[in-house]
Amino acid sequence: MDHTYRLVISCPDRVGIVARVSQFVAEQGGWLTEANYHADAESNWFFMRNEIRAESLKVSAQACRAAFAPIAEEYGMHWALVDSAVKRKVVILASHASHCIADILHRWHSGELDCDIPCVISNHENLRSMVEWHGIPFEYVAIDPQNKAPAHAKIMALAQEYQADCVVLARYMQIIQPEFCQAYAGRMINIHHSFLPSFIGANPYQKAFDRGVKLIGATSHYVTERLDEGPIIEQDVIRVSHRHSKDDLVRLGKDVEKSVLARALRNHLEDRVLVHGNKTVVFD
Amino acid sequence: MDHTYRLVISCPDRVGIVARVSQFVAEQGGWLTEANYHADAESNWFFMRNEIRAESLKVSAQACRAAFAPIAEEYGMHWALVDSAVKRKVVILASHASHCIADILHRWHSGELDCDIPCVISNHENLRSMVEWHGIPFEYVAIDPQNKAPAHAKIMALAQEYQADCVVLARYMQIIQPEFCQAYAGRMINIHHSFLPSFIGANPYQKAFDRGVKLIGATSHYVTERLDEGPIIEQDVIRVSHRHSKDDLVRLGKDVEKSVLARALRNHLEDRVLVHGNKTVVFD
Amino acid sequence: MDHTYRLVISCPDRVGIVARVSQFVAEQGGWLTEANYHADAESNWFFMRNEIRAESLKVSAQACRAAFAPIAEEYGMHWALVDSAVKRKVVILASHASHCIADILHRWHSGELDCDIPCVISNHENLRSMVEWHGIPFEYVAIDPQNKAPAHAKIMALAQEYQADCVVLARYMQIIQPEFCQAYAGRMINIHHSFLPSFIGANPYQKAFDRGVKLIGATSHYVTERLDEGPIIEQDVIRVSHRHSKDDLVRLGKDVEKSVLARALRNHLEDRVLVHGNKTVVFD
Amino acid sequence: MDHTYRLVISCPDRVGIVARVSQFVAEQGGWLTEANYHADAESNWFFMRNEIRAESLKVSAQACRAAFAPIAEEYGMHWALVDSAVKRKVVILASHASHCIADILHRWHSGELDCDIPCVISNHENLRSMVEWHGIPFEYVAIDPQNKAPAHAKIMALAQEYQADCVVLARYMQIIQPEFCQAYAGRMINIHHSFLPSFIGANPYQKAFDRGVKLIGATSHYVTERLDEGPIIEQDVIRVSHRHSKDDLVRLGKDVEKSVLARALRNHLEDRVLVHGNKTVVFD
Repeated sequence: MDHTYRLVISCPDRVGIVARVSQFVAEQGGWLTEANYHADAESNWFFMRNEIRAESLKVSAQACRAAFAPIAEEYGMHWALVDSAVKRKVVILASHASHCIADILHRWHSGELDCDIPCVISNHENLRSMVEWHGIPFEYVAIDPQNKAPAHAKIMALAQEYQADCVVLARYMQIIQPEFCQAYAGRMINIHHSFLPSFIGANPYQKAFDRGVKLIGATSHYVTERLDEGPIIEQDVIRVSHRHSKDDLVRLGKDVEKSVLARALRNHLEDRVLVHGNKTVVFD
Repeated sequence: MDHTYRLVISCPDRVGIVARVSQFVAEQGGWLTEANYHADAESNWFFMRNEIRAESLKVSAQACRAAFAPIAEEYGMHWALVDSAVKRKVVILASHASHCIADILHRWHSGELDCDIPCVISNHENLRSMVEWHGIPFEYVAIDPQNKAPAHAKIMALAQEYQADCVVLARYMQIIQPEFCQAYAGRMINIHHSFLPSFIGANPYQKAFDRGVKLIGATSHYVTERLDEGPIIEQDVIRVSHRHSKDDLVRLGKDVEKSVLARALRNHLEDRVLVHGNKTVVFD
Repeated sequence: MDHTYRLVISCPDRVGIVARVSQFVAEQGGWLTEANYHADAESNWFFMRNEIRAESLKVSAQACRAAFAPIAEEYGMHWALVDSAVKRKVVILASHASHCIADILHRWHSGELDCDIPCVISNHENLRSMVEWHGIPFEYVAIDPQNKAPAHAKIMALAQEYQADCVVLARYMQIIQPEFCQAYAGRMINIHHSFLPSFIGANPYQKAFDRGVKLIGATSHYVTERLDEGPIIEQDVIRVSHRHSKDDLVRLGKDVEKSVLARALRNHLEDRVLVHGNKTVVFD
Repeated sequence: MDHTYRLVISCPDRVGIVARVSQFVAEQGGWLTEANYHADAESNWFFMRNEIRAESLKVSAQACRAAFAPIAEEYGMHWALVDSAVKRKVVILASHASHCIADILHRWHSGELDCDIPCVISNHENLRSMVEWHGIPFEYVAIDPQNKAPAHAKIMALAQEYQADCVVLARYMQIIQPEFCQAYAGRMINIHHSFLPSFIGANPYQKAFDRGVKLIGATSHYVTERLDEGPIIEQDVIRVSHRHSKDDLVRLGKDVEKSVLARALRNHLEDRVLVHGNKTVVFD
């Protein structure tokens, strides 16, 4: 992957933002390899993502940030200048199911996902061997069903200890504590095994089977304190029919879950996802 | 379209049903052009659809039905032997929106839908010219918002007067009276402009926009007294993004709505849809 | 549809293009509602499309064009500033098949396609009534199979007489003369009934049936002198199986053809398609 | 997975086949859990697949086969009665690419693919560790580019030594010798990284990139002596755009390749794929 800087911005919309920002980029000698802009008419908010060849910049990322700060202040911007060479640390939380985590680990192992994976945390031991084969530490944290709080606290502590920039819930199946949600707002990604908002909550495949839907789906979203209601990053569906049992739905759904999660994670890691209220702008 | 008889059956599952039925078909000289069987493990119910070349049968459809009746009784079957040459009468109820009805009329006009359309009934006049160009009577029934019952009664009476075998709600947007639902149970098809059970009720595109989903859909289902909860015949989705306004969703959704409704209607007219409880078996 | 100006540009890539163009737009007071940029690394070519609220511009489109000309010259740009209020004239060429033209006419009639349709030209009479119902002149031009040149010349003359800005071949099924292709280079849109480059030439559905493919498709492309080899604008597919006869493929394919053509035409009319060599950039 | 017998038949079409076969099944006490029939009008050939609960049969599979043989002879049937409890041996041939084989191994490891994998054979060493982690022998066979015949012969010998019932080419990238093709006719499955018949031969992603297609695909087919021309089992596509480089196509294509291959293999292992001439009937 080429070395780039990503200048990602959201701010109230007005005339001249693109001009001001692109003038700044040009002044630094920045060669744009990709640029995406979106104006949301409803909220009057503006979003942009500029990808700049690192070697074209005359100054360091740090100097660049310092030079941009006054502009950002003038326009009231939320912004970041991200260096693609600094790999994000993605901590994965898993439970018993292997399909999503196997998919992520294979993509990472084959160089498709540009991140580090400092550890996998799970409340089951069954995935240890697979994780460790990839050279990744596996942290087992037993959850006492009668008293979950200590385990939850330990898991959050582990994520922070491993300096997670991003947390992925790869079919983790446990409620996330509010403080953990808050600490990783916009950086904690879940995969829900239904086409939200259909079949919120537990056992979505059973519900889909009972309702007799003709498509099942999966949804990747940022985790918020309200279960299954965070900003949606990616969704997809697959066709099913009367021939499929509930177990078939579970099996077919796995393929959708893992590809939806992988796409969401990739877009997140490339700073293509901008959250605004409870919705996302995804520059893919 | 070839002239066929369709022997469509559902009954409690047990050993030997296919043998008994196919032996019967063979005894009549019936040449199968298509056959579909499904055993639902959960409800222990069996479904079959046999399509038989009409000219291969040694006896008339009437004689065939008489000969089959004892078998049907023995197995406790719901069944029908349908003659494909007898065109069903499909009465369409429309409101102001034109996309679904224009699509159906064009398919009918170009010979793609094997049915008669004895009339279109609407509470708006705007589609009259289009309907009449196709040589189909257009019945306008004004609905008084303060007192809807007389109009609803008149619309049901018109459907019966035109001897509707099937009623299609082509974005009709009015509640159907319970007695109308009951009279056309399993024969009244609606198109709902969302991927049910997401966004039940009014304004699904606004709700989809507000939730920030990445796919929007449409659902065709048989109408029951419980709004948007009848057996689903067909569903499909289309990808949307942050670039799409609510009006874009409405526009993009039209294409899904009309194709989902057309597929559902076609399958219904070919006796490919078997209702069981609140679910369907669709032999497509 | 909102009144906008679209500034569409392609030119050799270098540092500062976005800055220069967006500075220009800002100087004119231009409020961007949408902006898309693409740098093609292989050919080192840059593409951009800026959509600007018409009422935000301080000067007329004409004045704006004059002011931009020196910048365009400096950067070696191919460019246009298009006024969305000036409707393009789309002349449709049709043959016997009705599905694509019925779809386009309905979209146009219901306000979904922002263009004028000054006439439909066909070598068959069967679509006259449908076209004229829409209030559009229908020009019948018989083609003598032994001597096609006069008819082809007349058809091209008619397109020019009706001042076509764009020509749509809605399953026209006739070879287009080189001079007609050249006169409408990048403005003449065809729909081919296969997923190109599969099944180039005649009878693609028969070829698809014979090959036993599991998906069939359609391709909309700009017409060039090399049959079925022009720049592709849009493609899509639909799943088929062994149950489908060649006639079923034809029927199912119609739905793909018409939706692919409609999307291509819409994108063309909104100046979202930029041709570069034999490929397209589609800012949708 | 439930223990079943699968009675799979193809033969010239005539009246009474279903009756005769289903009478036979009923006589043995066979409880059908699934049944699929297809009559191909063009070739006048009939295909059927009956899935029977093993415990419902009064006699052994062997006795059942003996009892069926006379019927099969009478109707000129190609047929098999397959015991689902006898796992097929699937030998995988791989090269350097890991995505398809990692996907198959994970599905197998998590119990989704009902087969044994006695060994993986490759002309590269890089996948050894991954394969061996799964407890599967890894056979490395170096191929001398100047003299490939000995290696090809050894690979075929290894497949036979491991008693392969089925050979999967998981992006193997080597030409298969005619005798190997013949020995595994209808049992050797390839994944081609294009939507065949588009982009036959080498470098399909480069060709797709150069042509500017808007969808890329993958095709799983039985291997015959004519490269990329065997009977197609499954195909799928994914949307791409001008934003995607050739490397992006390669990356996106991997996901299509692995899911298409997995579906083809699963259908093959469940005896759902019947070959007829150069086409397949897939009862899925």
